Amino acid sequence: MPRRVEPRLLKGFRDYLPEMMIPRTRLLRRIAGVFERFGFEPLDTPTLEYSDILLAKAGPEQEKLIYRFKDHGDRDVAMRYELTISLARVLAQYSTDLPRPFKRYQMGPVWRADAPGKGRFREFWQCDVDIVGTQSLLADAECLAIDHAVMTAVGVNTHVIRFNNRKLFRALGELLVRAVYESGDGFGDGGVSETRIVRAVDKIDKIGRRGVEEELKLVAPNAAMLAKLGQYLDLAQSQADNDKRIQELKEFFAGSRVGLQACDELSQVLATARQFDIPEQHLSVDPTIARGLDYYTGTVFETTLTNAPDYGSVMSGGRYDGLVGVFANQDEPAVGISVGVDRLIAALDELKLLEKSKACASVLVTIFDDKPESVKQSMVIAQSLRGTGINAELYLDPGAKLKKQLAYAQRKEIPWVVIAGPDETARGEVTLREMATGQQMAVALGLLSQTLCGQSAQ
Amino acid sequence: MPRRVEPRLLKGFRDYLPEMMIPRTRLLRRIAGVFERFGFEPLDTPTLEYSDILLAKAGPEQEKLIYRFKDHGDRDVAMRYELTISLARVLAQYSTDLPRPFKRYQMGPVWRADAPGKGRFREFWQCDVDIVGTQSLLADAECLAIDHAVMTAVGVNTHVIRFNNRKLFRALGELLVRAVYESGDGFGDGGVSETRIVRAVDKIDKIGRRGVEEELKLVAPNAAMLAKLGQYLDLAQSQADNDKRIQELKEFFAGSRVGLQACDELSQVLATARQFDIPEQHLSVDPTIARGLDYYTGTVFETTLTNAPDYGSVMSGGRYDGLVGVFANQDEPAVGISVGVDRLIAALDELKLLEKSKACASVLVTIFDDKPESVKQSMVIAQSLRGTGINAELYLDPGAKLKKQLAYAQRKEIPWVVIAGPDETARGEVTLREMATGQQMAVALGLLSQTLCGQSAQ
Repeated sequence: MPRRVEPRLLKGFRDYLPEMMIPRTRLLRRIAGVFERFGFEPLDTPTLEYSDILLAKAGPEQEKLIYRFKDHGDRDVAMRYELTISLARVLAQYSTDLPRPFKRYQMGPVWRADAPGKGRFREFWQCDVDIVGTQSLLADAECLAIDHAVMTAVGVNTHVIRFNNRKLFRALGELLVRAVYESGDGFGDGGVSETRIVRAVDKIDKIGRRGVEEELKLVAPNAAMLAKLGQYLDLAQSQADNDKRIQELKEFFAGSRVGLQACDELSQVLATARQFDIPEQHLSVDPTIARGLDYYTGTVFETTLTNAPDYGSVMSGGRYDGLVGVFANQDEPAVGISVGVDRLIAALDELKLLEKSKACASVLVTIFDDKPESVKQSMVIAQSLRGTGINAELYLDPGAKLKKQLAYAQRKEIPWVVIAGPDETARGEVTLREMATGQQMAVALGLLSQTLCGQSAQ
Repeated sequence: MPRRVEPRLLKGFRDYLPEMMIPRTRLLRRIAGVFERFGFEPLDTPTLEYSDILLAKAGPEQEKLIYRFKDHGDRDVAMRYELTISLARVLAQYSTDLPRPFKRYQMGPVWRADAPGKGRFREFWQCDVDIVGTQSLLADAECLAIDHAVMTAVGVNTHVIRFNNRKLFRALGELLVRAVYESGDGFGDGGVSETRIVRAVDKIDKIGRRGVEEELKLVAPNAAMLAKLGQYLDLAQSQADNDKRIQELKEFFAGSRVGLQACDELSQVLATARQFDIPEQHLSVDPTIARGLDYYTGTVFETTLTNAPDYGSVMSGGRYDGLVGVFANQDEPAVGISVGVDRLIAALDELKLLEKSKACASVLVTIFDDKPESVKQSMVIAQSLRGTGINAELYLDPGAKLKKQLAYAQRKEIPWVVIAGPDETARGEVTLREMATGQQMAVALGLLSQTLCGQSAQ
């Protein structure tokens, strides 16, 4: 006899048993429904690609975490780390076959060999929508409208869509350089790095303002500059409403062309989001939002739930006007947003907003005994219910006692059970049992499907 | 400037552009709908597992084709080759948490480093249903009922569900051994191998009867034995109806306990399939069906389309009572069936049964000009259509000429276009254009959604 293999999972991976998979499947369908309602088409790309494709725009951090190996033909391949880079490849590869603006959604797993943690797995799903081929900020605002529609569709109303513009950080870099000049100090090694400023400010949700200030000191140990940074953070964290905050940002960036452009874009996106009927309490202009990935160039967004802030952003994205050019002869403007499904599900679960269910069937058709006519009668009933669109499970072990079959329905939380014994069959009836109450009623066979639909609708 | 990366795909992998992905997504939803109607619950397992798990029951052929590598923690991991082995792991790992019979469906990609060919890819989807924990042949027959329901749901009516029982091959092996003894000849090296007989007979669809006979000569160069094999193939390929064929098989295997048991099971599955109301022309008892995988132990099935036989089997499976025991202390009976989605789609495409579509949106809302009030009006219209459940795309480039926007709708084959100029808006109307005919009509804003639903229903 061959040796038994120990059943086990890789660290950071997980099974979705039916109890988790049923609400997950429903949630994914609902999200796809919103994407389609906004006129996005589905796209799918391979999970394995040449490593140079997937790493074309990756930083060293991403490179470290990607699953990469040599395939049977000694090709350097990798499992996708996210979905956007493959979208950029698709646009370059089939450029003339695809209309512009090109609007697609894609839902599927991605892999990162990250340290597993609470709600953080090495295989997780992303659900992305992207709009490629237009610079119009109407597209940025539509991403916010999709965000709001997804949140509403999954039953959330405590979401805050926090958005910013990456150009603010470029402007901030310029201001900081000027602050150093004006202070009369020289620069340290390497001068002021926009990337490092972005990375530091990006952490404010995790490490707090104090933590950010510590990091910034490492980036630029100059008092005038730190004061300027402090001013920015004060402004970013003030209690001002959205219009007031944009006004304050305009004043802060008064001398900077790119800073004022960023403010103008923020203000346009805000106005358009309002026209999309997103209520004001769900919109927050937040100058601390940076988004880690290097490829964002304009608007960036994150979504947090005020009653479940620990899960971080459940829907995020931004404008990235330089990505397609990695594969094509010319750049194309693009903006998109992605649902962090696993975080969202974890948050919904905590908030008791996840409609849990252990069974897809709404009725179990039992088999009275193993006599051929009993088995046949139950088969006919199950098939006729299925024919009317009712999810009906037939108990597949004809020898089993009725008690065992009822216990099975109980365990799977199937709400209704049909019992068809010879007496019922002779009368052209079945017994319908409501599992929650144990109540039973006789129902004419021809009315069973109608009765079940009526009961479910109550 | 960083060097441009050549956009390209790995051999044997492919992108699903919207035109292909829309019908594919609809088909997968329809198949999932059938599975749920039969009371199966969704399950998902990781795509990456320890290699010894995925290879626990694999033959050398499978082992050669699996994508296998060392992960960041130097673990020996692999990408799943099929879905059943992970189901067996799940049943062993969460044994007491799961009800029996355990009925689950799973849909997702699997990977095989096979030689790519027409309709054969290295990444492809499987859609499996399995029933674990019952030996009842009612479960085998329900797999046939699901097969028929899936075919019907996707618009096929030329399917033949060919089924057999693997025990026939065991009985055949016994008969052949006896034939050799009775002929007075000795055995060649290694005697008669059931596995090699199964493999040879399994190829009959591809290499024809002559080819099988050639292979069998290599397995067993004994005249009496070849004559016996010839008799079996004659019987398997006769024009007899299902009942007659089972009768002939019974006669052929008259002396064999396991042969008669196989015939009895075939006859029960056939009778039960008829009770599930599968019309006779879709059922074929076919003693040549073997299924390659080593783990099948009883009923095996394949499904071919009489008007697209080149695609091979589009839905296949069987009973495998020894698989769960690879991971658990005791075996569990199991039977399942799997849709070969990619073959099915290719066949449907050839048969013009695939409902193709380039867009999810049924209406494009154009933007008359880039004046704020024009943009706003179109946004309001798009949002109100979405609110009534209509898939509505808003053209996201406000500066574009109407002609360009209409060309976009034409290209994506969006059937309706809404035009909302200042005159229409002043009258509380829009212009609704039917793209197929170019006909335009004025519709009151409040009746737009109703009008679109009415037009689509025609």
